[in-house]
Amino acid sequence: MLLVAVIASEDGTRMVIDCHGHYTTAPAQLGEYREAQRRAVEADPGHVGEKGIVDISDDELRASLEPNQLRLQRERGIDATLLSPRASWMGHHLGNEHTSRFWTEHCNDLIRRICDLYPANFVPVCQLPQSPGAGIASSVSELRRCVEELGFVGCNLNPDPSGGFWDGPTLDDPHWHPLYEVMCELDVPAMIHVSAACNPHFHSTGSHYLGADTTAFMQALTSGLFRDFPTMRWVIPHGGGAVPYHWGRFKGMAEEQGWQHLDELMGNVFFDTCVYHQAGIDLLVDVVPTTNVLFASEMVGAVKGIDPATGHAYDDTRRYVDAADLTDQQRAAIFEGNVRRVYPRLPDLDRQAKMER
Amino acid sequence: MLLVAVIASEDGTRMVIDCHGHYTTAPAQLGEYREAQRRAVEADPGHVGEKGIVDISDDELRASLEPNQLRLQRERGIDATLLSPRASWMGHHLGNEHTSRFWTEHCNDLIRRICDLYPANFVPVCQLPQSPGAGIASSVSELRRCVEELGFVGCNLNPDPSGGFWDGPTLDDPHWHPLYEVMCELDVPAMIHVSAACNPHFHSTGSHYLGADTTAFMQALTSGLFRDFPTMRWVIPHGGGAVPYHWGRFKGMAEEQGWQHLDELMGNVFFDTCVYHQAGIDLLVDVVPTTNVLFASEMVGAVKGIDPATGHAYDDTRRYVDAADLTDQQRAAIFEGNVRRVYPRLPDLDRQAKMER
Repeated sequence: MLLVAVIASEDGTRMVIDCHGHYTTAPAQLGEYREAQRRAVEADPGHVGEKGIVDISDDELRASLEPNQLRLQRERGIDATLLSPRASWMGHHLGNEHTSRFWTEHCNDLIRRICDLYPANFVPVCQLPQSPGAGIASSVSELRRCVEELGFVGCNLNPDPSGGFWDGPTLDDPHWHPLYEVMCELDVPAMIHVSAACNPHFHSTGSHYLGADTTAFMQALTSGLFRDFPTMRWVIPHGGGAVPYHWGRFKGMAEEQGWQHLDELMGNVFFDTCVYHQAGIDLLVDVVPTTNVLFASEMVGAVKGIDPATGHAYDDTRRYVDAADLTDQQRAAIFEGNVRRVYPRLPDLDRQAKMER
Repeated sequence: MLLVAVIASEDGTRMVIDCHGHYTTAPAQLGEYREAQRRAVEADPGHVGEKGIVDISDDELRASLEPNQLRLQRERGIDATLLSPRASWMGHHLGNEHTSRFWTEHCNDLIRRICDLYPANFVPVCQLPQSPGAGIASSVSELRRCVEELGFVGCNLNPDPSGGFWDGPTLDDPHWHPLYEVMCELDVPAMIHVSAACNPHFHSTGSHYLGADTTAFMQALTSGLFRDFPTMRWVIPHGGGAVPYHWGRFKGMAEEQGWQHLDELMGNVFFDTCVYHQAGIDLLVDVVPTTNVLFASEMVGAVKGIDPATGHAYDDTRRYVDAADLTDQQRAAIFEGNVRRVYPRLPDLDRQAKMER
């Protein structure tokens, strides 16, 4: 069980760190690269190709972020965001293991460049070059490259690289063990995050994301896999899917079936705050231990509108956490301390901000 | 949009009607019949067979219910339960369309017999003889048989008869239209309820049930299918899966994407109260209009234990509804009025109870 450690900034102020943001606003060149890959694989399913070039200038990167993520950070008082490639574009079911590798390297390289341009605003989290039927070795290599060479602090792991057919290995399968071992060695967590669904039954950012979150939690609960990886940490996004709302159901099933107790699982599994209304956040912080809730908004993401009932953006989750029934210490843990604890490679963002000033 | 109509009993008292119970405690003969079917289909996938006999006496039916559902009804102050065959045993992915038909007829016949034995305690709801790849005609026939000949008041519709592979028609596909038309003609609702998962990614009563609930809601929301069936009614079980917890997400997406507004969808879609802790029920009745919440506990079902924090059964949902922040009128609507409105074929249970006395 990990210990609680709320780390204050040097000057005693608290930071607000969003642990879940994607680069959803990339210039068109990125999509064009991907389209060319897809055409090549359509013509030849065994296409290998080469990494090639995604020609995006620093100015174009800035222009894609300034009016979007950076503007919203300022408006909402978010100090920094853990930024990863666009989740719905990971598209592990598209192309093959070779194109997935090159695509992933480019997406991660772009994240690194963004974090170099804005070291006080963004911290890099990587996607993995998963591919249905392929082994996990290339994901292990890319995780090592990103963390050891490029300073990434975590990864996104797709529990269903098929895109909604759920026909690959479950999360407790030995298939994943080499990746889990390196996550533990490097002390980086995984956010368990699917990509777009190609199964017409599922709406990607609606039922597929939320269903996958619940499914991943349930696989961890029933398998007890964290007993084999006691230092591994998972973040379940989107407020944990259906889990906190059905906390009594899962708690009762675990007690009855002799699975891990939820308290024990809370040493390894964490939930973000991507729940887009006050009542949902209130429930989340009520039933889940505060030590296991990490601030996040996933902006700019699935819900971009203004709630007519409040006049504020649905995904402005800082407002909900600010208004929730929490002590100052609990709120600081959610906004900063828990994020630093789950992502211990997070840099000293305060110092970086000061060096910039 | 349906009108609210809280119907009081003749003598002014309110009833508590549980809209979601399954016959989970059947004698062993039922399972033996099913096993024989499975062996026959294993030997010959095209096996047709015949309906045959499930030899269970009235005394055996009583013995299976008295210490279970009937005891819990009495202990918890539940007047009547809408009873349908065991959901996890519907097993539409097992056998073929012929065995599914005979199996379904037997399961529904048993429900009818139970309701004849205890007309004040149970009201019949049927399962449908769905089968992957088969047409919907046999489900239409069985629905007509159950409602027109046997007095059933509703049905359970499985949105994924594959058992977790989600490879059949989506709920807005014309495949389902003949069934929807008969549901409207007969004025009976469907509870959208999957059966056991055979996909190892999903735990049946955990991630599969809850994921399917969210998926069904999302398919209704994105397709606008209720505009073509304006009088059709669906009950989404298990508190609506992840939907109420993510109400802001769905509301925001619907507004942004130009789907049906949630308010409009609430003319057709209802949620039960199978959420097994106070915080979950509090959220449900806070965000979902009271007119759209139907009392249910799904006992004896997925969670049978006692919550050590309260000393009461997790699935004793009456306690949570009693304790929720509701007016007496709202509580009466959830306990009785809404159930009667959504299931208008529900008999006058009070009169039946009095005739028995």
